Amino acid sequence: MTRRPTLTVVGATGAVGAVMLQILSQHADIWGEIRLVSSPRSAGRKLAVRGEETEVLALCEEALEGTDVALFLVPEEIAAQWAPIAAAKGAVVVDNSPAFRMDPDVPLVVPEINPHAVRVRPRGIVASPGCTTLALIVAVGALHAEFGASELVVSAYQAASGAGQDGVAALRAQLSVVAGTELGSHPGDVRRAVGDDTGPFPGPLALNVVPWSGTPGEDGWSSEELRIREETRKILALPELRVSATCVRVPVVTAHSVSVHARFERPVTVARAHEILATSPGVVLYDDPAAGDFPTPADVVGTDPTWVGRLRRALDDENALEFFVCGDNLRKGAALNTAQIAEAIGAELAAP
Amino acid sequence: MTRRPTLTVVGATGAVGAVMLQILSQHADIWGEIRLVSSPRSAGRKLAVRGEETEVLALCEEALEGTDVALFLVPEEIAAQWAPIAAAKGAVVVDNSPAFRMDPDVPLVVPEINPHAVRVRPRGIVASPGCTTLALIVAVGALHAEFGASELVVSAYQAASGAGQDGVAALRAQLSVVAGTELGSHPGDVRRAVGDDTGPFPGPLALNVVPWSGTPGEDGWSSEELRIREETRKILALPELRVSATCVRVPVVTAHSVSVHARFERPVTVARAHEILATSPGVVLYDDPAAGDFPTPADVVGTDPTWVGRLRRALDDENALEFFVCGDNLRKGAALNTAQIAEAIGAELAAP
Repeated sequence: MTRRPTLTVVGATGAVGAVMLQILSQHADIWGEIRLVSSPRSAGRKLAVRGEETEVLALCEEALEGTDVALFLVPEEIAAQWAPIAAAKGAVVVDNSPAFRMDPDVPLVVPEINPHAVRVRPRGIVASPGCTTLALIVAVGALHAEFGASELVVSAYQAASGAGQDGVAALRAQLSVVAGTELGSHPGDVRRAVGDDTGPFPGPLALNVVPWSGTPGEDGWSSEELRIREETRKILALPELRVSATCVRVPVVTAHSVSVHARFERPVTVARAHEILATSPGVVLYDDPAAGDFPTPADVVGTDPTWVGRLRRALDDENALEFFVCGDNLRKGAALNTAQIAEAIGAELAAP
Repeated sequence: MTRRPTLTVVGATGAVGAVMLQILSQHADIWGEIRLVSSPRSAGRKLAVRGEETEVLALCEEALEGTDVALFLVPEEIAAQWAPIAAAKGAVVVDNSPAFRMDPDVPLVVPEINPHAVRVRPRGIVASPGCTTLALIVAVGALHAEFGASELVVSAYQAASGAGQDGVAALRAQLSVVAGTELGSHPGDVRRAVGDDTGPFPGPLALNVVPWSGTPGEDGWSSEELRIREETRKILALPELRVSATCVRVPVVTAHSVSVHARFERPVTVARAHEILATSPGVVLYDDPAAGDFPTPADVVGTDPTWVGRLRRALDDENALEFFVCGDNLRKGAALNTAQIAEAIGAELAAP
């Protein structure tokens, strides 16, 4: 291929799409044409990418013709329907949805961890993991390479934007109801003030936390919790890894946090773990609590890396570490990882 | 003793004191005189207890004379100084602060778990555990009695009122700054809007979570995290119990939540765990996520029990359970447990 590869962004008008357009304008420009596609409802709008106003096309077969790489930043059911169509037309699809993540013929890729996996894609589809998996996997993968991971117990503090623009709108609307009030001290008063319309969340999120995200899976697990287990096992190529995840939504706009208890095959030290994390690509070690240095969503939102702090060795287990990670769920947790995969494919296609 | 015992509430004007006065007005009245005491700064105010306006006395030796039971609802350093003075004057002290919790001559009591411990008090002092320990211990203790606890990995979602009235004021002030804005999408914008005065928290709490509470302990642990381990071991009489705790402050006014991974000596089933929790005193089982039933702070604030939901067996460990607990950190987490201990002592003193 002597020309630059053509890129199509399906879902350009959503929350993740908006971040993708920023990234495409900021990263080294390896693309020829960039085509923007959305649902018919949002088509016709003009959006800026690489400094040019570009009209958004409605998703249809024609819009997917003649593209080398197609990014799918759309809900699962849309990706399930349209990604195979794009692949059949010759595009390499990079899908941000859960639709193909557990398909054995679709690689699930985090470029810092398993970059080689991107090259074997029998269906012409490469999947990007979910935002909570991405919040923890870069740090966990780096420590796994040294110590050998055997068990993860993780509790997530998930931001509203993980549920899309509707989630952010619901949180902002609820906050303006409760701010400046004395609400929050009596049972149900936040629930009554917010009313029955809690947006995409199964309870009020302002002045509250909601221990649920996703759809009901088997035996009381949520789909998001099961996905963290399945995705982590697949990315690390550890099909027996013990994983227990609990997902809780918190009143934060953007940036997921995860409290991680990680057990390893070999004994660990904080000093060696610090060395590893301080030199791992995609990780920022920010860990001096006595000086007030630990990551919080307010500090990491809008940034690319996974931030790691609060690293301790378990007091009762010389093989286990505790730590706290924060990452922007719209950047590394979605658009950035998808863009990194696409850039690896673009470089491969452009190679002589 | 033929007369009713005299009760002194030290710290009557604080956040926990306010809840204590409610409880004393609501519970069966076993007390003779109830005396209210506070710092000299707040003394002279009149507060209602049992329907009577009562003047608050300044803390001094005289105010502690002739009382049978003295409740200390004050910061650690005040309790460390004054509780032994009250005990020397003949009072049985019930201390809500951390000052004496780990003293081997001071029992640490949760009436649902170790009620017998209250009777052996060589220093005349009984301690009540911290609010995060109390959020989880009633449920964990009930399951331990059946399955034998061997390891806990817990991540807390701590409310602002755990840091007292200053914590609540800081959260409310920050919320009125950020509500109705677009803040929360760019690094540092919440931090800049809130400014350097983040109250008792080491970072902004509105639209954020802060993975720290307490003071720096050894090896990167916070004092609150170490206390959860020490207190849980002492209450359950399991000095070897493996405990890893992570404390994170969330923008909730009142009610702590904890995500618990509990490993036991014996295999567990969700069905049996449900039976145990549904019949344990002080616990409400609220666990049907498909119907939207799981505890959240907004639902449990102002109530007495520990609420338990999201119960699952670990997928990769037949000896481990995951669950999510919520409890009001000012009621069971502080004033209620202290009142329950005092009522047990009051009944003992009143017995012929």
